[in-house]
Amino acid sequence: MLQVTLDDVLAQVRALLEQGDLASAVALIESLRAPDQADLFSELDTAEQTALLPQLDPGDSADILEEMADEDAARLIDNLALDDLARIVDAMEPDEAADLLAELQEAQVDTILSQLEDPNEVRPLLVHPQDSAGGLMTSSHLVLRRRMTVADALDAIRTLKPDSEEIYQLFIVDQHGKLSGEISFRQLVMAAPSAMLKDVMDQEVISVPVGVDQEQVARLVARYDLLALPVVADDGSLVGVITVDDVIDVLVQEATEDIQRLGASEPLDKPYLETTALTVFRKRIGWLLLLFITETLTGTVLRHFEEELATVVSLAFFIPLLIGTGGNAGSQTTSTIIRALALGEMDKKKVFKPLWHELQVGLLLGLGMGVVAYGRALLWHTGSGVALTVAAAIFVIVVWANVLGSVLPLLAHKLKIDPTVVSGPAMTTLVDATGLFIYFTVAGIVLSLK
Amino acid sequence: MLQVTLDDVLAQVRALLEQGDLASAVALIESLRAPDQADLFSELDTAEQTALLPQLDPGDSADILEEMADEDAARLIDNLALDDLARIVDAMEPDEAADLLAELQEAQVDTILSQLEDPNEVRPLLVHPQDSAGGLMTSSHLVLRRRMTVADALDAIRTLKPDSEEIYQLFIVDQHGKLSGEISFRQLVMAAPSAMLKDVMDQEVISVPVGVDQEQVARLVARYDLLALPVVADDGSLVGVITVDDVIDVLVQEATEDIQRLGASEPLDKPYLETTALTVFRKRIGWLLLLFITETLTGTVLRHFEEELATVVSLAFFIPLLIGTGGNAGSQTTSTIIRALALGEMDKKKVFKPLWHELQVGLLLGLGMGVVAYGRALLWHTGSGVALTVAAAIFVIVVWANVLGSVLPLLAHKLKIDPTVVSGPAMTTLVDATGLFIYFTVAGIVLSLK
Repeated sequence: MLQVTLDDVLAQVRALLEQGDLASAVALIESLRAPDQADLFSELDTAEQTALLPQLDPGDSADILEEMADEDAARLIDNLALDDLARIVDAMEPDEAADLLAELQEAQVDTILSQLEDPNEVRPLLVHPQDSAGGLMTSSHLVLRRRMTVADALDAIRTLKPDSEEIYQLFIVDQHGKLSGEISFRQLVMAAPSAMLKDVMDQEVISVPVGVDQEQVARLVARYDLLALPVVADDGSLVGVITVDDVIDVLVQEATEDIQRLGASEPLDKPYLETTALTVFRKRIGWLLLLFITETLTGTVLRHFEEELATVVSLAFFIPLLIGTGGNAGSQTTSTIIRALALGEMDKKKVFKPLWHELQVGLLLGLGMGVVAYGRALLWHTGSGVALTVAAAIFVIVVWANVLGSVLPLLAHKLKIDPTVVSGPAMTTLVDATGLFIYFTVAGIVLSLK
Repeated sequence: MLQVTLDDVLAQVRALLEQGDLASAVALIESLRAPDQADLFSELDTAEQTALLPQLDPGDSADILEEMADEDAARLIDNLALDDLARIVDAMEPDEAADLLAELQEAQVDTILSQLEDPNEVRPLLVHPQDSAGGLMTSSHLVLRRRMTVADALDAIRTLKPDSEEIYQLFIVDQHGKLSGEISFRQLVMAAPSAMLKDVMDQEVISVPVGVDQEQVARLVARYDLLALPVVADDGSLVGVITVDDVIDVLVQEATEDIQRLGASEPLDKPYLETTALTVFRKRIGWLLLLFITETLTGTVLRHFEEELATVVSLAFFIPLLIGTGGNAGSQTTSTIIRALALGEMDKKKVFKPLWHELQVGLLLGLGMGVVAYGRALLWHTGSGVALTVAAAIFVIVVWANVLGSVLPLLAHKLKIDPTVVSGPAMTTLVDATGLFIYFTVAGIVLSLK
């Protein structure tokens, strides 16, 4: 039931298309839910897609295009007749229509807009960045007025038949279009029919300005369990509404981008297996090269200490161990700090709090690792001098890695760089070179003391 | 408006408490929204919390306890009189009440359950793991019957006044309690009052079994834009409903855990800055030690190739560079694969598809990095032999890291281990030792050829 075996349906659709029975293929596809329709569609080739899409109910075609990755949808669109396309875009949610049009050329956009029933629902949405509140909002949300009665409002809903997702939270504006209150559909149904909305509405509405980043939108919706969040212009007028289903998509997408960046790759814009090897290569090679160049610093440090290395060869055995541990301690710190930043747990004014926190943790971890490393080095029969060097070096390196691991993301955050960028591998690479420097400096001090 | 300056309110509350004006402090707290109340409460000390909580409206106290981290709530509860507590638990959502009771001792749980108005709403929820569908669901969701009319259903809603979040999607059962259909509140309001629910309801309902993991629940809700998801027992009977606000919490929590595990730390259960340094230390030291012990393999490999290292000292300069690049390439791969697994993008039957994908990407990246490394080595005047060694080694290491980086998470997934565990630092550590082995083996072949 839950897991529709899409492969089976796909085979059936293909068989029907081969027999030339387009109508049955269309009926079969229309029996599926929108996300399943989109998955099935993405498995078809462009010729099959182009043949099928205009035959489907425009609402279904719109759903399919909405669910497909934007570039795939844009490629498919290039093959469609413009009036077929206008019919489909007309059936889309205005926010999704705007996202799709953003992938097309200006001339195409103008042609399509001119054929829409109500281009003014879509046009204002085209100016907002896709990852801002303005890019997430829809402009077609039903808006009520302060001086309507409850009965008027219910009549409006019966007449306009808005989508389910647009109805659970209703927003009320004053005569200048300024957001003035909210009421849930449930409260509305329960209220006395003759009451004025202004008397039954809730006046304390959480709203966001149109330019706010989508991460902050997601944080507000998650914190206050909102089903819909109104978006206002600078003058306080209601310009759109963001619904919870769009916020869920943002949460999933932002977590994906953070995790991919933590792995030192540019975020992929499409599902992994649908991304070609060449695209994956391009998303990764830049970081790999940059890290490689940074990592050559380690060679410079090693050449600088060539003499020490030649005198006590056993020092070399501990190189990967020490820089590895430093990198691990740093990664532990950055991943914690980055997530705390993403969740809005950090007070931007109190940068010293996490630093002090990590200094304490670093001292504890450094002490623990120092003791273990001392024991391990003795077991390798390297002599107590080298053992002491390794233990002292690992202590300093771990403390240093924890400090660096907390400072770097915070600094990036302050400089308005995405903190995930200075994390994981970038962090590790930096700790490698500085860790080697610490190691050989400590070796110089400890071993010449003997 | 958006960012309540909680620090100011906190200062006011403290001042009122010092003046002994408990009533005004209570009024001030009750003017805030639940998540803000919880934030403010967590800043108060235990004595202040214990004095205030029983004075608040039980509904507000319940909200505060629901929003607080479970352990903090349990500590606060220890200081409350059991009948105060029972009053508060009675006002909680059954799913939240069950989560809270799970933190208490059995004797306390029994006492509280015996004082609840309807203990049977909470009792069945105590048996499900917190991270399963059963642990997320609430049992208090309004349930309708097939043979009710639309008017009956609306009457029931008016009488029972369920919470907003319970009403947007209503579920309908047959005479045996089996899930048989659904209807949105909007459809219900629009339908003819005399119609039977079985004739106007939607029969195709997406549901999950009670034991399903919360990640799969979140995936379904995100995919199909659901506001509520019914949970059924083995015999198909409706046992509870999961609402979208709980799913958002799951999405945020799962992403946090994944990111912290990717950084080789056990997930913290509380906001970072509220976690003591000692707890953070304990969450990290285990992994750090385990990785340290694995990393000692690199020392073993280096000692094995001591002779080669002594003959061509310049080989040492490239050690951190080569193993660093291998680790980076591996991290890029694991982070992509892990996210694709979490999003359910991977077909479990087709394990060779990602492997083949990463092999291609690895060959491309290895080739690119090999060329760059050759140039870099020549610039360091190490001679063409060493340069060729470094270039060939980096090619093999990058391909190997990509293969390992795709195989390990997939293998972990098959063995039902969380794939994030074998990622990032764990992956890097493994690539370090094997990478060194590859490097010196290649060096042996290339340099003895000359």
